[in-house]
Amino acid sequence: MSERAGRLLSRLEGRLDAAGMLVGDAVSDGYAADATARGHRPVAVLRPRGTQDVSAILSAANEIGQPLVVQGGRTGLSGASRPLAGEVSLSLERMSGVESIDVAAQTMIVAAGTPLQVVQQAAEDAGLFFGVDIGARGTATVGGNIGTNAGGIRVLRYGMYRAQVMGLEAVLADGTVLSSLKGLPKDNSGYDLNPLFIGTEGTLGVITRACLKLHPKPKSERNAFIALPSLKAAQELLARLRIGLSGLLSAFEAIFPNVYEGTVAHMGIRPPVEVGAGMYAMVEIQGQSPDQDNERFEAALAEALEEGLATDVVLSSSLREFSGLWAIRDGINEFLFARGESVGFDISVPLSRMQEFLDMAAHAISEIDPDAVSFIFGHLGDGNLHYCMVTEREKEIGEAVFSAIAAVGGGVSAEHGIGTDKRRYLKYARSEAEIVTMRRLKAAFDPNYILNRGRVFEAPVSVGQVERA
Amino acid sequence: MSERAGRLLSRLEGRLDAAGMLVGDAVSDGYAADATARGHRPVAVLRPRGTQDVSAILSAANEIGQPLVVQGGRTGLSGASRPLAGEVSLSLERMSGVESIDVAAQTMIVAAGTPLQVVQQAAEDAGLFFGVDIGARGTATVGGNIGTNAGGIRVLRYGMYRAQVMGLEAVLADGTVLSSLKGLPKDNSGYDLNPLFIGTEGTLGVITRACLKLHPKPKSERNAFIALPSLKAAQELLARLRIGLSGLLSAFEAIFPNVYEGTVAHMGIRPPVEVGAGMYAMVEIQGQSPDQDNERFEAALAEALEEGLATDVVLSSSLREFSGLWAIRDGINEFLFARGESVGFDISVPLSRMQEFLDMAAHAISEIDPDAVSFIFGHLGDGNLHYCMVTEREKEIGEAVFSAIAAVGGGVSAEHGIGTDKRRYLKYARSEAEIVTMRRLKAAFDPNYILNRGRVFEAPVSVGQVERA
Repeated sequence: MSERAGRLLSRLEGRLDAAGMLVGDAVSDGYAADATARGHRPVAVLRPRGTQDVSAILSAANEIGQPLVVQGGRTGLSGASRPLAGEVSLSLERMSGVESIDVAAQTMIVAAGTPLQVVQQAAEDAGLFFGVDIGARGTATVGGNIGTNAGGIRVLRYGMYRAQVMGLEAVLADGTVLSSLKGLPKDNSGYDLNPLFIGTEGTLGVITRACLKLHPKPKSERNAFIALPSLKAAQELLARLRIGLSGLLSAFEAIFPNVYEGTVAHMGIRPPVEVGAGMYAMVEIQGQSPDQDNERFEAALAEALEEGLATDVVLSSSLREFSGLWAIRDGINEFLFARGESVGFDISVPLSRMQEFLDMAAHAISEIDPDAVSFIFGHLGDGNLHYCMVTEREKEIGEAVFSAIAAVGGGVSAEHGIGTDKRRYLKYARSEAEIVTMRRLKAAFDPNYILNRGRVFEAPVSVGQVERA
Repeated sequence: MSERAGRLLSRLEGRLDAAGMLVGDAVSDGYAADATARGHRPVAVLRPRGTQDVSAILSAANEIGQPLVVQGGRTGLSGASRPLAGEVSLSLERMSGVESIDVAAQTMIVAAGTPLQVVQQAAEDAGLFFGVDIGARGTATVGGNIGTNAGGIRVLRYGMYRAQVMGLEAVLADGTVLSSLKGLPKDNSGYDLNPLFIGTEGTLGVITRACLKLHPKPKSERNAFIALPSLKAAQELLARLRIGLSGLLSAFEAIFPNVYEGTVAHMGIRPPVEVGAGMYAMVEIQGQSPDQDNERFEAALAEALEEGLATDVVLSSSLREFSGLWAIRDGINEFLFARGESVGFDISVPLSRMQEFLDMAAHAISEIDPDAVSFIFGHLGDGNLHYCMVTEREKEIGEAVFSAIAAVGGGVSAEHGIGTDKRRYLKYARSEAEIVTMRRLKAAFDPNYILNRGRVFEAPVSVGQVERA
């Protein structure tokens, strides 16, 4: 353990309880990894029980200059919570629980270490609904979700996590506690400081509590699996449903043919819609008037079939069928995993230039690695594609894909963030002026770079690189 | 003209065209005032034609240390765009126009000086809908709307202006141009810098262009005027309709009895619903399925009548009736104006504590000025009340109202912002730590305080007060 880390731990002895500080063998392997890779084992794990503990930890670390990695459920996919060499972990795992729900105002106050699934369940128990859902719901925590502005499958209806945040309590690097948990839907009493902590990957402060927005619980939920002639048809259908099913449409997932066929084969099930189509989509509605909603959904899909926008449609008519169709979408990851090592890009593409991007990327990839196989699926409603590939030439292919992204004005990380893993690609999506401005924010709020140092962009040489990506 | 201002103008000669710089008599009276009061006549008005002009102006003003007041439509109500002594105006009035609309993505790119009504009309012409509407629509501009995070009547459905911003182009005080106009609904490629400019009242940068979110155009719009026994009944009805009319409810305005009765008398019309009730509300729906929507609306209101939540309901059944009911809501300001000089507070109150706040404020007011008369109305769906009073003791009453706001955890400015006029009240809504953090942002992005100096909070003595509020 470094002298710095040692000084931090001595300073905090007595401030934290016995279970509040893990060192040596007590630091289990889990703390060293996020969902994609193993990093360094943190030299210690600090486990505050409340906001004042967090403030004391940050204030001491800031004075000493000890870098911290902020950890929630460690389900991140870009390295923001994966420890770099020499970091002490600040884990919010003991600050968990729903504190209160205001049913009339449709808000919830929750501690940052609470798993997403607990939030979803508490909303449901109160007759309400939480708008974000992601695969890691059982482990991913609210603080990490907000820090990475998590997205998921219903962004086109409810927005990203950013849109669920009515207020935050957060601690700045110097220990300053900012509390803004009033949950007022309309409040222009000075600057809104919450955005400093949303999607900034723990680099500007540590979120300790949040006031989240809830929605009316859907009385009807239904989905359909659709075969379509082409991506173009899927885009046209999406555009129509956004208008025609306005207020109902809650997901529009696109699945490219080889992914659909591979996944149903891997699952060993009968394909719900014909194989051999040009594109597949999984569409979901959520509404308040089951009969009327079903009528609108069926009419819209019948029209799509009639006009040739869709060639085959299966509509769920029971909860079992509903879950069965979702299982195919959810089964994609397992199919890809079984295919072997693949590299995945989580990209955001303007809808109007998606085909142009796909052609450009496919062409560039075939020049680099003619044997590369692409598996593409994602949240078409948000222009968010998960573009996965089996290839030996990951780095060159990454550059090629992101060059195509830059050419069409897309984003290099639609929902997974930059962390350490995608730092080198940031310049394909953001201008030098923007990156300099991000650094300016960092320098203003964390001048000693103690919080998630080296995430999003490299720390200046003066404060020391923790590790180069 | 000060020596500083003179230097700025010389520096910009040749950079701006003939109409780009107004001095002396060419500076008309309009530039001196916002919607509430006359300030100082600016020593000059700079009228850039594009982003590069804005960058040149800011870069020069920053070097010279010349304070600028940023002006759009000058319809603000708190003094952010009302010139202080010695300021040069930076008016965006020549940077106007809708640049492009992407119908499939439901986005629009627009110059900052474009009036709101032009945005609304362009959206409508494209078969879409813009979610924010405020009374000053014909004059207020997009840049000012974003800078003040404008709200209005449909926040409970579409959110504040903040929720309409998909991207911004803005210029920092040092002339740095930040452009983020991709309009991607999902993009976590580094920090989102747009929030720096939303609701910060022109103090951190100058917005030059925006990518705005559009919505499906409603196929049905209908409203109802409702008499209710009490505020409590109105709150209960609101809570029910938010669930029962989810996806339809677009406005829920509360009007206190003396305001309703005074307004219809002032307008010389027959009251649409009975006088003598305990509370009045004006409710609007917007939907995509006229027959089904009307059915749901009528059923919900019939249920409210049956259960005694409402005592009288008038439902519009034509565009003319629809506009007639809105005219009453819109007629309130004229009634209040005719009543004579009044002081208005634009406050945000947690729904669950609204009655507590009203009782506390009424009690405090009666102690200070037993003759004070209150006129209360507002956007109940957002907890936003316009609390107006005829009184001679404005200052003490302001302190009393805001003390009550502080006690219930409300906001001192729900939608009008702080500007210069409400600086002294900011402390009732925000902690010292929050205000210090706002100043930290200001110092990081505008260290010479050239942009809207003294708005939101006072400038440090070191850079000089433009004028004390």
